[in-house]
Amino acid sequence: MIQRKLEVTYLPFDRSTRVPPGTTLFSAAHWIGLPIDSTCGGRGTCGKCKVRIVGAATEITDADHRELRQDEIAGGWRLSCQARIHEDMRCEVPQLLRVPKAATMGLGRLVILDPNVRKVYVELEPPTLEDQRSDVARLHDALEAEGHDMTAEVPVLRSLPSVLRDAEFKVTAVLGGEHLVAVEPGDTTGECYGIAFDVGTTTLVGTLMNLRTGMAAAVSSTLNGQAPFGADVISRISHGMNGPEAVSELQAAVVKTMNEIIGRLYAEAGVTADRTYEAVVVGNVTMLHLLFGVDPTPIAMMPFAPAFMEPLAVPSAEVGLNIHPHGYVQTLPALGAYVGSDIVAGVLATGLAREDKLRIFVDVGTNGEIVIGSTQRSLATAAPAGPAFEGSQIKCGMRATDGAIEGVQLSDRVELQVIGGDVKPVGLCGSGLVDAVAQLLLTGLLDHSGRMKSREDAGHHPLADRLIEVEGVRAFLLAEGVYLSQRDVRELQFAKGSIATGIKVLMDILGITPSDVDEIFLGGSFGSYLNPESAKIIGLVPPVNVDRIIAVGNSAGEGAKIALLSYRERQVAFELPARLEYVELSGRTDFNDAFVSVLQFPHLEAVS
Amino acid sequence: MIQRKLEVTYLPFDRSTRVPPGTTLFSAAHWIGLPIDSTCGGRGTCGKCKVRIVGAATEITDADHRELRQDEIAGGWRLSCQARIHEDMRCEVPQLLRVPKAATMGLGRLVILDPNVRKVYVELEPPTLEDQRSDVARLHDALEAEGHDMTAEVPVLRSLPSVLRDAEFKVTAVLGGEHLVAVEPGDTTGECYGIAFDVGTTTLVGTLMNLRTGMAAAVSSTLNGQAPFGADVISRISHGMNGPEAVSELQAAVVKTMNEIIGRLYAEAGVTADRTYEAVVVGNVTMLHLLFGVDPTPIAMMPFAPAFMEPLAVPSAEVGLNIHPHGYVQTLPALGAYVGSDIVAGVLATGLAREDKLRIFVDVGTNGEIVIGSTQRSLATAAPAGPAFEGSQIKCGMRATDGAIEGVQLSDRVELQVIGGDVKPVGLCGSGLVDAVAQLLLTGLLDHSGRMKSREDAGHHPLADRLIEVEGVRAFLLAEGVYLSQRDVRELQFAKGSIATGIKVLMDILGITPSDVDEIFLGGSFGSYLNPESAKIIGLVPPVNVDRIIAVGNSAGEGAKIALLSYRERQVAFELPARLEYVELSGRTDFNDAFVSVLQFPHLEAVS
Repeated sequence: MIQRKLEVTYLPFDRSTRVPPGTTLFSAAHWIGLPIDSTCGGRGTCGKCKVRIVGAATEITDADHRELRQDEIAGGWRLSCQARIHEDMRCEVPQLLRVPKAATMGLGRLVILDPNVRKVYVELEPPTLEDQRSDVARLHDALEAEGHDMTAEVPVLRSLPSVLRDAEFKVTAVLGGEHLVAVEPGDTTGECYGIAFDVGTTTLVGTLMNLRTGMAAAVSSTLNGQAPFGADVISRISHGMNGPEAVSELQAAVVKTMNEIIGRLYAEAGVTADRTYEAVVVGNVTMLHLLFGVDPTPIAMMPFAPAFMEPLAVPSAEVGLNIHPHGYVQTLPALGAYVGSDIVAGVLATGLAREDKLRIFVDVGTNGEIVIGSTQRSLATAAPAGPAFEGSQIKCGMRATDGAIEGVQLSDRVELQVIGGDVKPVGLCGSGLVDAVAQLLLTGLLDHSGRMKSREDAGHHPLADRLIEVEGVRAFLLAEGVYLSQRDVRELQFAKGSIATGIKVLMDILGITPSDVDEIFLGGSFGSYLNPESAKIIGLVPPVNVDRIIAVGNSAGEGAKIALLSYRERQVAFELPARLEYVELSGRTDFNDAFVSVLQFPHLEAVS
Repeated sequence: MIQRKLEVTYLPFDRSTRVPPGTTLFSAAHWIGLPIDSTCGGRGTCGKCKVRIVGAATEITDADHRELRQDEIAGGWRLSCQARIHEDMRCEVPQLLRVPKAATMGLGRLVILDPNVRKVYVELEPPTLEDQRSDVARLHDALEAEGHDMTAEVPVLRSLPSVLRDAEFKVTAVLGGEHLVAVEPGDTTGECYGIAFDVGTTTLVGTLMNLRTGMAAAVSSTLNGQAPFGADVISRISHGMNGPEAVSELQAAVVKTMNEIIGRLYAEAGVTADRTYEAVVVGNVTMLHLLFGVDPTPIAMMPFAPAFMEPLAVPSAEVGLNIHPHGYVQTLPALGAYVGSDIVAGVLATGLAREDKLRIFVDVGTNGEIVIGSTQRSLATAAPAGPAFEGSQIKCGMRATDGAIEGVQLSDRVELQVIGGDVKPVGLCGSGLVDAVAQLLLTGLLDHSGRMKSREDAGHHPLADRLIEVEGVRAFLLAEGVYLSQRDVRELQFAKGSIATGIKVLMDILGITPSDVDEIFLGGSFGSYLNPESAKIIGLVPPVNVDRIIAVGNSAGEGAKIALLSYRERQVAFELPARLEYVELSGRTDFNDAFVSVLQFPHLEAVS
């Protein structure tokens, strides 16, 4: 998987980057924040992204012949969106994108508004005996003149003649990539929507985006309708093993959930399906297999080789999603069987691997997905954490819903933060668990081996009377009927130990220590609620200044929105699997060795 | 439409041709019968078709980088299938295809067996922890190693994991172009079929082709199920004007007919739908619109601009054709609203426009489609002939079925050739009509203005007693109850006059006279039965030696078979619209002038 990287330098900026062979000059520039001028967004049809190659073999593509003059070609000018990098090279950029329409998204990322879905209003010349081009050719030529390529398929062709003639040949063409999605009478360029979906095993979030303004028009989320088939991916896959009907059942369940969300989005924003042309969907590998009805069995079985990890563009009708009937559902690629497109979206949203800063991204859940890197080199892996962080396998554990303790502060008394506000605590969710353990370590009621003190050992500690025994096991009473047991602490040790080990293995491969780390991002719905200080105290993440540990919220959903709004960013996501090296932890002896060494909690002086 | 042509010369053969800008070196060579070596057939994936460009700007494509060494590229070597011609150029061909599997098809054309559908047996390495590529990536890489590109869509992905694992990763990949149509357990390369369809307004012909041997496995034909909606394209279009449901009705009727044919083909050859991966369909523009359910209205209305004339590849499931559910239906392009893909197929089958010989191709029917040309320049047009040639509007006219007089010989007696052999003649079909008129001209019973002699005028002519009057109109009695009337002769004069005028207009544009014409091809189901001598006598075709007038049979069906068996030939068909100039006759003053001059029959001395 490790390829020789090639160095490309952009003049007059003198900015360089190292990319895998075959990357375009256009795309590589975008990686390092140089948005080369373009109206077609890098599709080879507008001719604006030309650069001059300096002292390297000169490729000439068809698009060059189409868009450039012969003397320009002879002078070394090429379309940067078509010119692929096959050796170290330098090029001169005459023009960056001026005053682009852009939005700040994800983690302070400036995203240029340039969606894959484009609406183009054209006034066609009506046919005459001297000009008998077909309707398709007529539309194609008009779009080409404005820098857009187009291919038309049968579903749109069916009504094309009447649409054109009823509208007196004044129509709006809707392009999804180069696919002609629709031809609408008159000028409808003002109404253009898409939906970004984060399909989680537990929760689905959909955001209806206005592709013209780049703003969210509505957001909605709900539980995954696959829940009756099991809480985690393994139980979903197990159900799918019952055969193609079972897979179809799981598919129908998630599609139904998505369509419920879509219905609410339309109602809230006053938007219709026929103005919503694309859905960008991210999720773990299992969720995407089930969304398309693809057999997920191999994901659950050694050696974990899924049917697909590549990005797919699937007709919405084939998926059954209630957007425009000729629209497309686009997914992002995955990095491994357990590092899905949700993580790729997270990487997109955080800008990780595209800046010189060395950063760690951790999505904490049943699996801890970890990405570490900078422009120099980036690695990704998944560490099996078990269900502790989701509140499962914990005596008083529960999901992060009303009544769950999500924050704990111990001093001479116990202060609790409970979801739902003024309600009686009924259990402990993941972030509360991490807080509780961290606070017990700080107060000395838990030693760094993870052993809880007995009430006798605690002596005059102000919280000594909270130390109890339940069924012969030591525990700490957090509230009436809610306690943390010694066994719960052990569960957490295994869970955090696994993730911490994953991080350590990747850091060792990169040859870096905690002092080299610029930032740590905690992602996923759990990471967003996690107290960074507690994460550090229990040793889930390496000991860095707590200011550098940042909760990045629903980075998967942000990444999906970015890919919906920017064709350039989508290309970047497509190229991430070639840039990020996937490390499989199963069977690595260094993982097992490191795991033993990080099972314990850090000594407090090491993290303060 | 007229583009500057570029000249390309192939060494060491010193063969040249002139092609439109953008044509590939590979394709242009194939045009002139130089099959450059290749296993992938020109898809840029096998690397065998390399040529050395001599003294011209050197393009380098991605495929070049992939398939050629750096020193080869530096030395001017390029993949000829990727190198497009943008200026006059010369290149050196190191290797022609050796001992290709080929078949003689169409008009003595040697067609290299290289179908778009390819079956590739692969034994994949099963996944391991060290090699966790997805199933798609694994298959892709194995096919790429053998020179094939591949993209997989959701329908095939669904069962890919179980197919691969049940077959222990020993499978046959079925590629339709680069689309992965199927993955079959074990080695099934021996079973590979496709269907060539000629969808006529009246009759449909389907041929099941064995794509491994290039042989026809079964042939079947039947009447178009759209017949109840009218006999000709105009009445079909009129029915379609009743709205989308009416178009769907017409679509369902033709698809049903095609599936009936398919059922018979499978039964006869013992072949199943899941081993039949592609259908190549040709037909007039209206038939293809209706096949896909596309509104055909504009075809019938000035200025005759259809929805599409481009070739389409449509998933079989979308068409409803009973071949492999993930297979494709491929059409060929049309040249004009009334010069459809059946004519393009005919041009493919005859090799017209690809050889130095100057040839005329005429498909005689309700419309006379005409193509005239050589490698130098080629023109196409359609002349509205009316229904006379199909036996309609003729007093005793009938279709070419049992009882129809299809041949007439007059001397001192009347000799008739009747369809069905020893049956009583009941009417006159198109070829019989042409024969009858030609023979009457030869015997002097008809003068060159088209005026029939009365019995009195005929005097002692041995056939004088056959001259009768029916309802006050002169007529010639062919058999009991079957006669040819003066009005029928006038109808034929208009019909042949229109086609003859079309031919004359094109010949005038090319600046040629009958003595320049090397061959005349009579195509279509009618042309095949037409007596070449009679066609010449009535002035339907220019006066050339009768040996040079050749009935070419069902050239449309032959062309469809060629496009099914040869990816190269299919590319040639796709390029024909750029090579053939379409001439619209409506509103041309030279057409009207010429029409008047050719209404009369030629003087006999001019055609003898």
